[in-house]
Amino acid sequence: MSEERFVTQITPKSEDFSRWYIDLIRRAELADYAPMKGMMVIRPYGYAIWENIQKLLDRRIKATGHVNAYFPVFIPESFLRKEMEHLKGFAPEVAWVTHGGDDELEERLAVRPTSEAIIGFMYSKWIKSWRDLPVLINQWANVVRWEKVTRPFLRTTEFLWQEGHTAHETYEEAQEETIRILEMYREFVETELAIPVIHGRKTDREKFAGALATYAIEALMSDGKALQMGTSHNLGQHFAQVFNIRFEDRHQNLQYVWQTSWGVSTRLIGALVMSHGDDSGLVFPPQVAPIQIIIVPISVGNWKETVLPVAKELKDSLERAGLRVFLDDRTEYTPGWKFSEWEMRGVPLRLEIGPRDVKNNQVIAVRRENKDKIALDLTGIEQKVKELLAEIQKAIYEKALAFQKENTREVSTYEEFKSLIEDKRGFIKAFWCGAEECEAKIKEETMATIRVIPMDQEKGQKGRCLYCQKEAETVAVFARSY
Amino acid sequence: MSEERFVTQITPKSEDFSRWYIDLIRRAELADYAPMKGMMVIRPYGYAIWENIQKLLDRRIKATGHVNAYFPVFIPESFLRKEMEHLKGFAPEVAWVTHGGDDELEERLAVRPTSEAIIGFMYSKWIKSWRDLPVLINQWANVVRWEKVTRPFLRTTEFLWQEGHTAHETYEEAQEETIRILEMYREFVETELAIPVIHGRKTDREKFAGALATYAIEALMSDGKALQMGTSHNLGQHFAQVFNIRFEDRHQNLQYVWQTSWGVSTRLIGALVMSHGDDSGLVFPPQVAPIQIIIVPISVGNWKETVLPVAKELKDSLERAGLRVFLDDRTEYTPGWKFSEWEMRGVPLRLEIGPRDVKNNQVIAVRRENKDKIALDLTGIEQKVKELLAEIQKAIYEKALAFQKENTREVSTYEEFKSLIEDKRGFIKAFWCGAEECEAKIKEETMATIRVIPMDQEKGQKGRCLYCQKEAETVAVFARSY
Repeated sequence: MSEERFVTQITPKSEDFSRWYIDLIRRAELADYAPMKGMMVIRPYGYAIWENIQKLLDRRIKATGHVNAYFPVFIPESFLRKEMEHLKGFAPEVAWVTHGGDDELEERLAVRPTSEAIIGFMYSKWIKSWRDLPVLINQWANVVRWEKVTRPFLRTTEFLWQEGHTAHETYEEAQEETIRILEMYREFVETELAIPVIHGRKTDREKFAGALATYAIEALMSDGKALQMGTSHNLGQHFAQVFNIRFEDRHQNLQYVWQTSWGVSTRLIGALVMSHGDDSGLVFPPQVAPIQIIIVPISVGNWKETVLPVAKELKDSLERAGLRVFLDDRTEYTPGWKFSEWEMRGVPLRLEIGPRDVKNNQVIAVRRENKDKIALDLTGIEQKVKELLAEIQKAIYEKALAFQKENTREVSTYEEFKSLIEDKRGFIKAFWCGAEECEAKIKEETMATIRVIPMDQEKGQKGRCLYCQKEAETVAVFARSY
Repeated sequence: MSEERFVTQITPKSEDFSRWYIDLIRRAELADYAPMKGMMVIRPYGYAIWENIQKLLDRRIKATGHVNAYFPVFIPESFLRKEMEHLKGFAPEVAWVTHGGDDELEERLAVRPTSEAIIGFMYSKWIKSWRDLPVLINQWANVVRWEKVTRPFLRTTEFLWQEGHTAHETYEEAQEETIRILEMYREFVETELAIPVIHGRKTDREKFAGALATYAIEALMSDGKALQMGTSHNLGQHFAQVFNIRFEDRHQNLQYVWQTSWGVSTRLIGALVMSHGDDSGLVFPPQVAPIQIIIVPISVGNWKETVLPVAKELKDSLERAGLRVFLDDRTEYTPGWKFSEWEMRGVPLRLEIGPRDVKNNQVIAVRRENKDKIALDLTGIEQKVKELLAEIQKAIYEKALAFQKENTREVSTYEEFKSLIEDKRGFIKAFWCGAEECEAKIKEETMATIRVIPMDQEKGQKGRCLYCQKEAETVAVFARSY
């Protein structure tokens, strides 16, 4: 890093949330704009988060019996055309390959916006009998959607994700899988990303193109807007019918399989920024932080002889304990500069060590999320640091949860709804009659959409639809969203 | 798996190597053909090998100071056109995106055949000073090359790979990096894939389009043909000049950076098949085998009560010891069928356990690579199995090394060369004058190419060029290749 690139001011979050977000992402070197419209480069500091997400999620995907595979990045146009809803949903966003070398292709190829079509075709070759079921496959891949308005991590022309695609004997099994995955996502995001979510079913208007039902986890960003964090679809037999994925069942009858698909993407990195960041910059939960501990030696006197060797030893012992540590021993920056720099970059724990600390066999530990300082004895520090990181992880989650609770409100009148959405945003719970017209009108008039219909509806509850005032039995959660 | 799909005959290797290769890949479910020309699906059993390769290689890439990042899958046509040699090398193989949704793009986008151009552009934004150097970035990604003739894993329209891209202050540093990576690849392939390689420099004719020099590791497949397993390029300042990647050096002068790039791909999976496989099927080295140990209970008498619980316990204890184990307790297949099935699928070690074994507190261990059988005591079996797997890994390597040595020959006359290449193939060492005409003529007349010019040339050696008989000081290694 060169001297010029001092930690410059980042637009305060309270002043302009969008600019704050973009400033942070670029200054912290999470990502950079690519020269092609809507595309980004995920820089090493941002990609390290994705690697941590992959490791922690892949473990859960495998623990629930899934295996990974890899399907082609191209999908013939005719495949997309087979399922009309699916085509309508994705065609406007497809990047089309028309030439291979100098030759024009006989059929255009879509760069995959999602892989149901190609995977459906392959499953029709692989699945013959009930003994072949369930098929539980996941893939980690890049996908492309030609988006008009883009924002790093949240909506980019290309993004990275995992997409699970499963096939089952019965509707019930597919539905169980859909909910199992939704629950896996919820637990993963809350445990590892420290982001509390609500979960439930999407309305027909908001569901995946081609699905029977879509379920989602949704989180509230710190500006009060909702972000869809992951989706799990019960695809029913739609794709099985168009791709002819049939199996001989236990009674020798030919049946179509029941399918699911589900995914989370690099959008999760954007969620980390917007959920936990503050005016000093990023705040990463230790579980996914690229660097968990930054060691800053206090460069006074003959620190290179006295402090630096102790700092190096500390780094080594923390690394041996399995922690991700960086020792910032650069001489061209002051300790104060380094403090701001690594706060801005969201490192959960800073260990400062100066000549006096060496004498006292201690370091000063500073927590990123609340800036608390405590002295830690160097003896047995590995264990204490691990405990501290666990505390930080918990505190970050608790803070986000408190924010979510504060910003989840119930309303009964549309006037109240409109003023809340305008002033405070947040999640708003209200009765909804189930009519798509009401949903559409609300969106048109307030820019709020139904994020989910929570699955835990109170039995026998009754109220009046937020919009049309007809009697309603379902509570929906509304918000403005990314 | 359904009953019909019994382990059917695979074309014997000696009869038709190409068919044997394809049969194996499909029957063992490593990969399947996709409906688009030249594309394949990597099935879970094949993808698990790639995951093992990624884990073992990524560790080495990081241990040598590199970090991962992700660059866009699309590259604007104008970027490719900036470096003429590079363009000439790749243009015929590029898949072009011309439309996003319904709109024709102003500029065509190449689906990346390799990423020097887009990475060069980004580096020009990121690198300003010698303090920013070296930049040591790797990415794991898919790439597309529109190939005319394809074969699963060896040459496919899309493949997965890692591509390292580094930038340095001096030529010397770039050259050191180029060779460091070549050596990393050699050690990785020999240690983990158990495939012995030769390494050296490529001729100008065979080098990467745009590189100063290309180095490669090459292995001999068991049909006597060579396979390029990985390449490491010293790019010099070619891309730095066209993308204007300049830095202020230690004396405040503006300089172009010196770059390298290097990669290995899913081709390595094809190499595993062709190096170690035999007439019974695949033979995977334990280090990368998707399943290291297959446990087959002998289903006689009341085996479900007596044998199965012991087999399950065995599986659990081996898994706890960090091994990849599968217990084949399916009732619809006989033990004999399972033996053939898992031999065909290349599992390095089989543990058979029947009622008598349970009584004797033992299992019968059968090695895949030499079919040796020994009884192993169940007490403390984890350690013994680990030792056995290490022995198997070594034996597979030794066998491949013996084959390579047997099939590496020195010749001095062209007649001898032609007859050897025709009859026995293998690596052939011969003097070469360095003229591209001789190299081209040899290829035209024998289909053999110079695989590498080994780096360890004997000092003061002299001979006559294989083709033109002029005096020559360089020995080259020739072979027919994939």
